[in-house]
Amino acid sequence: MQAKNQISTVSIIGSGNVATALSIALADCGVKIVDIFSPNIANSKLLASKIGCNFVDDIIKLNQNSDLYIIATPDKEIGNVILNLKEVTGVVVHTSGSEPITHLKKYIVNCGVFYPLQTFTIGNNVNFENIPICIEGSNESVTNMLSQLADKISNNVVVLNSEKRQYLHLTAVMVNNFTNHLYNIAHGVLLDNEIDFSLLHPLIKETASKINKVIPGDAQTGPARRKDEVTIEKHLQLLNNYPEYKKIYSLLSNQIIKKYND
Amino acid sequence: MQAKNQISTVSIIGSGNVATALSIALADCGVKIVDIFSPNIANSKLLASKIGCNFVDDIIKLNQNSDLYIIATPDKEIGNVILNLKEVTGVVVHTSGSEPITHLKKYIVNCGVFYPLQTFTIGNNVNFENIPICIEGSNESVTNMLSQLADKISNNVVVLNSEKRQYLHLTAVMVNNFTNHLYNIAHGVLLDNEIDFSLLHPLIKETASKINKVIPGDAQTGPARRKDEVTIEKHLQLLNNYPEYKKIYSLLSNQIIKKYND
Repeated sequence: MQAKNQISTVSIIGSGNVATALSIALADCGVKIVDIFSPNIANSKLLASKIGCNFVDDIIKLNQNSDLYIIATPDKEIGNVILNLKEVTGVVVHTSGSEPITHLKKYIVNCGVFYPLQTFTIGNNVNFENIPICIEGSNESVTNMLSQLADKISNNVVVLNSEKRQYLHLTAVMVNNFTNHLYNIAHGVLLDNEIDFSLLHPLIKETASKINKVIPGDAQTGPARRKDEVTIEKHLQLLNNYPEYKKIYSLLSNQIIKKYND
Repeated sequence: MQAKNQISTVSIIGSGNVATALSIALADCGVKIVDIFSPNIANSKLLASKIGCNFVDDIIKLNQNSDLYIIATPDKEIGNVILNLKEVTGVVVHTSGSEPITHLKKYIVNCGVFYPLQTFTIGNNVNFENIPICIEGSNESVTNMLSQLADKISNNVVVLNSEKRQYLHLTAVMVNNFTNHLYNIAHGVLLDNEIDFSLLHPLIKETASKINKVIPGDAQTGPARRKDEVTIEKHLQLLNNYPEYKKIYSLLSNQIIKKYND
């Protein structure tokens, strides 16, 4: 069956961070969200009331004639969700960075990926305008339709195949989750030493801003960049009470030293 | 000898990133920079012309009556510089995050630390207004004098002893240098796979902005946070050609898993 040219009605599966942010963004742009299903009834009720749509307590109760079904669940649940959407006539997409489109294609002709590359937290409203939305469709018609929809909420829509999307997701984990873990380590060490973490805020902001002006390879500074072994040794001593953090300090410093000084 | 109450004249030692940023910021606030010495004659000439002061080609030619001498050199050179400033009557400070004040105190009565906590790159102008400046003085009079000077260029002046400053510097390395190394890894992996690094810019910015709203421990998301071993395994496979990056991915993921799931 041929996919429709335009998406008028959408059903959402999921009620977590991505489902919430995406539903709100779509609804705000006039896209009709028909209904929401999530095993987390409290969350889905809340989300449905926020955007003024139905919520259903069983996936088979979802409207069977929506133009689009957006699966915004944890990756491991996508497989089960698909099995319950085999009969729908609309396009089925997931929002995962790392799941290839092939899993959907096995069961559903008109399918795709709608991956918004951002970190979402319920309660923290984000402006979708600049968020990259990575689109992949099972055929050109689906790709076009998804791109049109994405264009409504973002100025940064790209068509990307599954392999490239996986690499993008991998690097997103590095610059977001791993960076946040470094913030978390810093927060803990400063707390233990009664130093205000907010002293690091301007540095954290400037570090992130620099990518607009200079590629990261040229922005690298610090003791390891200079192979300043005295300072590195001092820092390792300071981390004697934090053996796990010491491992990170060593590994990253050694890599930077190698990259710039060997 | 008692230090003067206010600093009217300053001599700068160094012409690198910190020396340049600090000299310009002080001069812009009306502080009189008298002269600059740096073994890098080209750099120091350039900097001296920028702020309209003398440059000297030997440290012993520096004005001997400045109220303040700011040593903004690599840490390992501070010791040598001090030996050449033993006779001056003004206050001598360094700008290092990790050098304790004790090294200065051995030779100079009125001394201190003037540590601006930011990443500086020549050519990239920064607004000092929000940059934390960490002050330490050999006595209260020096501390007050340095604080007054710092207040002229920043709204974020804190008095911090050497031990706390060391921890602050250690964590600054983590959130700045190590984070930038993660950006650099991401940049390289994406380049190899012909994916535009700028797709990560909004995520990088949001990750850094989140610290204003939520502590890093609560902001943690991602596969390791969820103990999503399938995705982690996929990412490790993608990194098969990057054994060094794979080590970082494993180490950081395991720490996050341990922190949130064990």
